[in-house]
Amino acid sequence: MVYQPGEPYDYPLIIKKLLNTPLIYSPEQEIVYRDQVRFTYRDLRGRIGRLGSVLQGLGVTQGDVVAVMDYDSHRFLECFFGVPMTGAVLQMVNWRLSLEQMVYTVNHARARVLMVNTDFLPLLEAMRPRLETVESVVLMQEGESRLSPSFPIAGDYDGLLEGGDPEHGFPDLDEDTVATTFYTTGTTGNPKGVSFTHRQLVLHTLSGAVAVGAYDSVGRFRSGDVYMPLTPMFHVHAWGMPYLATLLGVKQVYPGKYEPAMLLKLIVGEKVTFSHCVPTILQMITANPAVASFDLSHWKVVIGGARLPRGLAEDAWKMGIKAYAGFGMSETCPLISLGMPGADWESLDRDTLMDTVVKTGRPVPLAEVEVVDEVGRFLPHDGVSTGELVFRAPWLTQGYVADEERSTELWRDGWLYSGDVGVIDGDGYIQITDRMKDVIKTGGEWISSLDLENILSRHEAVLESAAIGVPHEKWGERPMMIVHLKPEYVGAVGPEDLKAYLKGAAEKGDIPRYGVPDAFEFVDDIPKTSVGKLDKKRMRSAFG
Amino acid sequence: MVYQPGEPYDYPLIIKKLLNTPLIYSPEQEIVYRDQVRFTYRDLRGRIGRLGSVLQGLGVTQGDVVAVMDYDSHRFLECFFGVPMTGAVLQMVNWRLSLEQMVYTVNHARARVLMVNTDFLPLLEAMRPRLETVESVVLMQEGESRLSPSFPIAGDYDGLLEGGDPEHGFPDLDEDTVATTFYTTGTTGNPKGVSFTHRQLVLHTLSGAVAVGAYDSVGRFRSGDVYMPLTPMFHVHAWGMPYLATLLGVKQVYPGKYEPAMLLKLIVGEKVTFSHCVPTILQMITANPAVASFDLSHWKVVIGGARLPRGLAEDAWKMGIKAYAGFGMSETCPLISLGMPGADWESLDRDTLMDTVVKTGRPVPLAEVEVVDEVGRFLPHDGVSTGELVFRAPWLTQGYVADEERSTELWRDGWLYSGDVGVIDGDGYIQITDRMKDVIKTGGEWISSLDLENILSRHEAVLESAAIGVPHEKWGERPMMIVHLKPEYVGAVGPEDLKAYLKGAAEKGDIPRYGVPDAFEFVDDIPKTSVGKLDKKRMRSAFG
Repeated sequence: MVYQPGEPYDYPLIIKKLLNTPLIYSPEQEIVYRDQVRFTYRDLRGRIGRLGSVLQGLGVTQGDVVAVMDYDSHRFLECFFGVPMTGAVLQMVNWRLSLEQMVYTVNHARARVLMVNTDFLPLLEAMRPRLETVESVVLMQEGESRLSPSFPIAGDYDGLLEGGDPEHGFPDLDEDTVATTFYTTGTTGNPKGVSFTHRQLVLHTLSGAVAVGAYDSVGRFRSGDVYMPLTPMFHVHAWGMPYLATLLGVKQVYPGKYEPAMLLKLIVGEKVTFSHCVPTILQMITANPAVASFDLSHWKVVIGGARLPRGLAEDAWKMGIKAYAGFGMSETCPLISLGMPGADWESLDRDTLMDTVVKTGRPVPLAEVEVVDEVGRFLPHDGVSTGELVFRAPWLTQGYVADEERSTELWRDGWLYSGDVGVIDGDGYIQITDRMKDVIKTGGEWISSLDLENILSRHEAVLESAAIGVPHEKWGERPMMIVHLKPEYVGAVGPEDLKAYLKGAAEKGDIPRYGVPDAFEFVDDIPKTSVGKLDKKRMRSAFG
Repeated sequence: MVYQPGEPYDYPLIIKKLLNTPLIYSPEQEIVYRDQVRFTYRDLRGRIGRLGSVLQGLGVTQGDVVAVMDYDSHRFLECFFGVPMTGAVLQMVNWRLSLEQMVYTVNHARARVLMVNTDFLPLLEAMRPRLETVESVVLMQEGESRLSPSFPIAGDYDGLLEGGDPEHGFPDLDEDTVATTFYTTGTTGNPKGVSFTHRQLVLHTLSGAVAVGAYDSVGRFRSGDVYMPLTPMFHVHAWGMPYLATLLGVKQVYPGKYEPAMLLKLIVGEKVTFSHCVPTILQMITANPAVASFDLSHWKVVIGGARLPRGLAEDAWKMGIKAYAGFGMSETCPLISLGMPGADWESLDRDTLMDTVVKTGRPVPLAEVEVVDEVGRFLPHDGVSTGELVFRAPWLTQGYVADEERSTELWRDGWLYSGDVGVIDGDGYIQITDRMKDVIKTGGEWISSLDLENILSRHEAVLESAAIGVPHEKWGERPMMIVHLKPEYVGAVGPEDLKAYLKGAAEKGDIPRYGVPDAFEFVDDIPKTSVGKLDKKRMRSAFG
């Protein structure tokens, strides 16, 4: 671009600019993939350049969609930057979806290029004939697997990068250019596409960095930390944390396929200090007997995607793991709030500390959170007025891609309607009590299924539980608990024990008396959605 | 505003939004003015609301300019927010300018309202008849002074606020609305107006908070710190730090008129941990014999506006004060770079640490810095290639207000030309060696006046010095040092001693041999500009 004398540079908030600082502050810092790959930020910039020139060679132009199906890897990180930096859109494909849904999302996004980890080749074989827009497939070689696909491919990711240009320059883009897209699965209808612009991702990164960096708290994440995601990178940009980690120039460790032994090896061996995951993953780690022999006292973990059960938080903290909750949604990029105790957390008694870390948090800088009644009136922040949570922030999706009807449900009166039910207390803490579609209403009163689940999580015999509402002639609905017992308690603990435990909680005032469930169902596994959330729709149809 | 269903909220980056987080995180945190006023962030929000309604009552509408002449005070902080939040423009008047220049700036900005500290009433008496656009004057009552002005006033600031509405709501504005303006004085011509938009100030605040919060360093500024400015708030928004401090919800202490005893009392009594100032102010503090009896080991101070002399840095660190340099300009909002040593600063030897803290720093997140030759070509970052420093960042002034000619000098090829000469080293550290207009060129070679001043600052007899170029028949120019000796050395140290000292530096390779000055002039005081910078123009005309 040619500038006239006196013409200022109109600085766009684009992803390319997030690389400015780390390349100056920590060019020699490391990016690690399992026990296989290790390179520096300087190399990262070179690899992103190569990727840009490869995409150009594949004919990718501004606005084209490049879909990626991969584990959490350095390659995915390169795509987080390289794809949007060319002006193309990165589609993060959720490979836990059904084949049907995966095909739907890639076609709906109109992806022209698909990059796929070779571990997913069998899946891709089944998908390929049904992909309507994909012109080029690039394989990302995982380990030694050497399956040859039956369809033509554009090349191997690393091979193509070798032929790319590390000095490849990236254009300045309009900051409102779409950078990323992915699909969120409701329990009804087709997956819904959301998208985020460069500006939104840059602001999400800056606000996140202020939240975890500039506020003193147990949950700090700063330039001296070592980062490893434990949320799939297809899941809301791994919560946006790879962008944040890169801005801060920290050492980054990518674990590939989640295998408990490898995860532990990396956490300990690479001295990981900051991660994020859903409760299930944390539970997988705390429940692993091998963990006891490791020192995890430097590990901070943000828990999101589902409520952090108090019992699990206690188990984690007993091991020295500083686990605390955050909140966000696919529609919100995702960061909305963090449940960090303040700078004085070390002086809090354990009970207060646990109460704080499991809270869904307080809004990060710039984010605005309100709770509204059925007609959209703001309710007081008093810790008791329950309603739907609504949000504003500079990084919320502007609607569902090509889905006017559901977008109309999402944005009302200039607020994003979360579909979550909760309260806000006098200190600004958000507490989510239910999903709108999962609320249990008995005798005209709401019961918080999350309260029931949280209380039961502290019973020594309970590994996990889910509360659902089942139809009842007199009361409309009554709560029922679906319970996964710890193996050693199966047969030893029955419905009456759990009911008595919850009655005790009702007597202490933790839940209303009418909230004590009548029915308990024991299962070997709680049904989950593809991103690890409780699948209450399936439970209601199975047990309701 | 009425939103249609499905219509997203287009979140503007406006100053109002910076208040979201502190009002949730630390509503009971304190704002302090000297030993006179103390209130909470909750009160601050109420007072900003009152100010908004008072401005509305005075007929201030969007785009109107409200000028403020005040010391560093809670009132000024309220104006930092309340004036732009109404959609008006805050003009920060430099009351150290000549009467002539002050009148010029207020007229040029077309200020409709002028708010003035009663200490400046005598000044205002002289200005009032010549102010062409000011319709309302509001007096800010300082202490007990009870001068009655000879012209009508709209009221007393605190009195008006009492009648205001604490719940006053502020509109959402276009983020590109101008929020602030002030004038920068060159050594030639009229003062030049610069202005900044809401978006620029919000991004400056976020990037600054990431720089000082999320990067581990000696210079950290986080939610647990206590802030006190020691740069006038009229001077580039007190470097933007009041916005940053407010976002972080820290305790803020405003010192009013700079009086050494009061400053020390506040630093110690209010437990101030973070400040910023020009070297002269730091020197005033370190040179005060009373300081020795205070513990200043919790105090971090960013030095800007002029180079941090190594001798002064050493004096400060000996007292436990963690002083380090930053760099910015009136045209850059101002933050461009910070000279913070990294997380490992405690393990550095004192010499390396001092070398690092006096460096002009590395760019803050998003900022871009290059060094260019006479025709605008980028020079290598090798620590020796000297040229003019040019900048890009999302918060640079877009030009000088109503001054096309000088704006054309400022922005060239899409870069802001700083007028500063320097180098960038391989680690990305910027080192400024001169102002373009102050460079000394002898026999075709540049000599860094800042190097000369810095070396001399370490001579035990030298309080302060300035290097200027004086015309020379054979060499074009030769360097001359203007020197302010410490009182106890006057008469005892002469030109030959200083010349020998600099020759020693040349022998060690710190400066070229031809850079050793031939002439030394001893003065009682080094001439300074209104913002405390060395006034080399005056020195050249006096000694050149």
